Amino acid sequence: MKLNIALLAGDGIGPEVIDQAVKVSNAIAQKFNHEINWKPALTGAAAIEAVGEPYPDETHEICANADAVLFGAIGHPRFDNDPSAKVRPEQGLLKMRQKLGLFANVRPTFTFPSLIDKSPLKRERIEGTDLIILRELTGGIYFGERGRKDNGDTAFDTMTYQRFEIQRLAKKGFEMAMKRSKKLCCVDKANVLESSRLWRETVQAMEKDYPEVEVTYEFVDAVAMRLVQWPSAYDVMITANLFGDILTDEASVIAGSMGLMPSSSVGSKVSLYEPIHGSYPQAAGKDIANPLATVLSAAMLFEDMELTDEAQAIRDVVNKSLAEGIVTEDLSEGGKAYKTSEVGDWLAANL
Amino acid sequence: MKLNIALLAGDGIGPEVIDQAVKVSNAIAQKFNHEINWKPALTGAAAIEAVGEPYPDETHEICANADAVLFGAIGHPRFDNDPSAKVRPEQGLLKMRQKLGLFANVRPTFTFPSLIDKSPLKRERIEGTDLIILRELTGGIYFGERGRKDNGDTAFDTMTYQRFEIQRLAKKGFEMAMKRSKKLCCVDKANVLESSRLWRETVQAMEKDYPEVEVTYEFVDAVAMRLVQWPSAYDVMITANLFGDILTDEASVIAGSMGLMPSSSVGSKVSLYEPIHGSYPQAAGKDIANPLATVLSAAMLFEDMELTDEAQAIRDVVNKSLAEGIVTEDLSEGGKAYKTSEVGDWLAANL
Ligand SMILES: CC(C)[C@H](C(=O)O)[C@@H](O)C(=O)O
Ligand SMILES: CC(C)[C@H](C(=O)O)[C@@H](O)C(=O)O
Repeated sequence: MKLNIALLAGDGIGPEVIDQAVKVSNAIAQKFNHEINWKPALTGAAAIEAVGEPYPDETHEICANADAVLFGAIGHPRFDNDPSAKVRPEQGLLKMRQKLGLFANVRPTFTFPSLIDKSPLKRERIEGTDLIILRELTGGIYFGERGRKDNGDTAFDTMTYQRFEIQRLAKKGFEMAMKRSKKLCCVDKANVLESSRLWRETVQAMEKDYPEVEVTYEFVDAVAMRLVQWPSAYDVMITANLFGDILTDEASVIAGSMGLMPSSSVGSKVSLYEPIHGSYPQAAGKDIANPLATVLSAAMLFEDMELTDEAQAIRDVVNKSLAEGIVTEDLSEGGKAYKTSEVGDWLAANL
Repeated sequence: MKLNIALLAGDGIGPEVIDQAVKVSNAIAQKFNHEINWKPALTGAAAIEAVGEPYPDETHEICANADAVLFGAIGHPRFDNDPSAKVRPEQGLLKMRQKLGLFANVRPTFTFPSLIDKSPLKRERIEGTDLIILRELTGGIYFGERGRKDNGDTAFDTMTYQRFEIQRLAKKGFEMAMKRSKKLCCVDKANVLESSRLWRETVQAMEKDYPEVEVTYEFVDAVAMRLVQWPSAYDVMITANLFGDILTDEASVIAGSMGLMPSSSVGSKVSLYEPIHGSYPQAAGKDIANPLATVLSAAMLFEDMELTDEAQAIRDVVNKSLAEGIVTEDLSEGGKAYKTSEVGDWLAANL
């Protein structure tokens, strides 16, 4: 198979972790006789520096014409505490999601047997945790009207949802539930928000099309609580953009393997794959960041291309590296801490 | 001292837990020679049933003229899955907050030595946790314009903040930080939301008035994560209404003592005291709910009235009940499970 993959390294540790995913993917390509054509493109703070824009048109062209996008991380502290900054790296991410039509962010949270004791939660609370949060990614308060009034003394943001936006996301949720445990949880704040009531009403109306799926409705505040108490009680969850932003990050630390959680963003022709961790600027350039989440994101990419054996081979070698302690400092705990690049080399060599 | 306290039992387990707080408060009054004049009033689903309105004018009159309000819980499942319900119990809560001017919700999270092992988190993660989240309570997306368009196919909610709303909340945060560890964390989503940028800009401008306070700014998604990882790293936090709703609930389970966490809502003349748990309808009428959060809310009430010894006496007897295992089923773990009313009786008798 011939694959064109847009390669967006982004900011902070992005380039370093992306490098390892490329190494591993290239090794897979060689082993399984594929040809990967990598198309590097600028994004984030790096793109602002180079061309004044966090998601330049050339980058979009490359992504739109690729078979998939592999993405590192975005964000730079220089912009965070400057409320007046006109151009921000994050705008690039939002623009990319919107222009590529990536309306669903798929974020699995699962445990690695060898890492379960690294979780802040007790073992008995997280054993068996295997959930997927489907976060709506191109609507809601991220894309509604916003601005200032009263000489800047009043600021507003609008959370807007249209029925079709909820339907297409929920459809993915129902379909995913059908392939898993047939449980779907819709997370909203319908006791306060009108947009949440539209969510609830829309999902309720779809229940009849999936009679086997057991649907529950929970408030986002209760879920924030129960995710810590009994994460294994959840399976497929669907939720709005902002709630998903918060809950997916919360969920990511539950399994004790934040540095290992991959994600995909899907919706139209091209899908995007990225680690769920951020740009981690403090570690940038030090060759210490954990590359496994990015490597596992590449596995998700192969899986979605129906290259199942290839995906499994990546997951297997990741498990092997964990079992043999070929890990970066965040996981080494007393043992030897390998460099980012060393972990990548090892994975590529041991496939 | 003569105290007029409005008594809003509300829904679900509200009446049962409120009863115990009344018992304990009355015993305190007797011991310290105070006179408490309880003024019961209707609220929530109970009020909708009785008079068609979740926060009737008579209830507001009683609250507005009291020295303080003691509140149980609000909410009934009958309304949750009916997106078309015109009157909801929660509207009563929101109206009450707004009409009483309760713009700051003060939610402490701390550990009880005797309960630390009940937390879903590991002991070493939570030891020393003692944080306060100050949630803005009368603004933001809870009170902005909302509605439907396109024949009901589009729904919107508006998150609006005015500078003065942020200032008065932040002022409380700074003052609280000055009395504690001089650390203040402003939690927002300034990388996306304009209202969050107004938060950040407003708090930044206030820093110079409190040169001793070290202020940090974090994104809500990162905080949702770090609260689970290292809750003891936080002290005083300030945040918008919706973010506070989610984070305070998340924080409440960290210490393993959700059933014990009190809260106050303050702002103008009258303050309100309530347990942070909900109406827990499944347990209603069974005399099994844990009354300690409500009893400790009464302690917060006495504390704010500068009745420090009274407040301490309540906290002491609660600690004693925990140490001696006079607890409801949620905490009994193998030992005897006392009834809600038995715990209340024991506390009142052992003051
Ligand atoms: C960087 C930021 C705009 C982004 C978001 O909020 O969506 C990030 O937190 C994420 O979850 O991918
Ligand atoms: C019942 C609901 C409207 C309320 C809120 O969201 O404020 C509750 O969750 C709370 O936190 O007090």
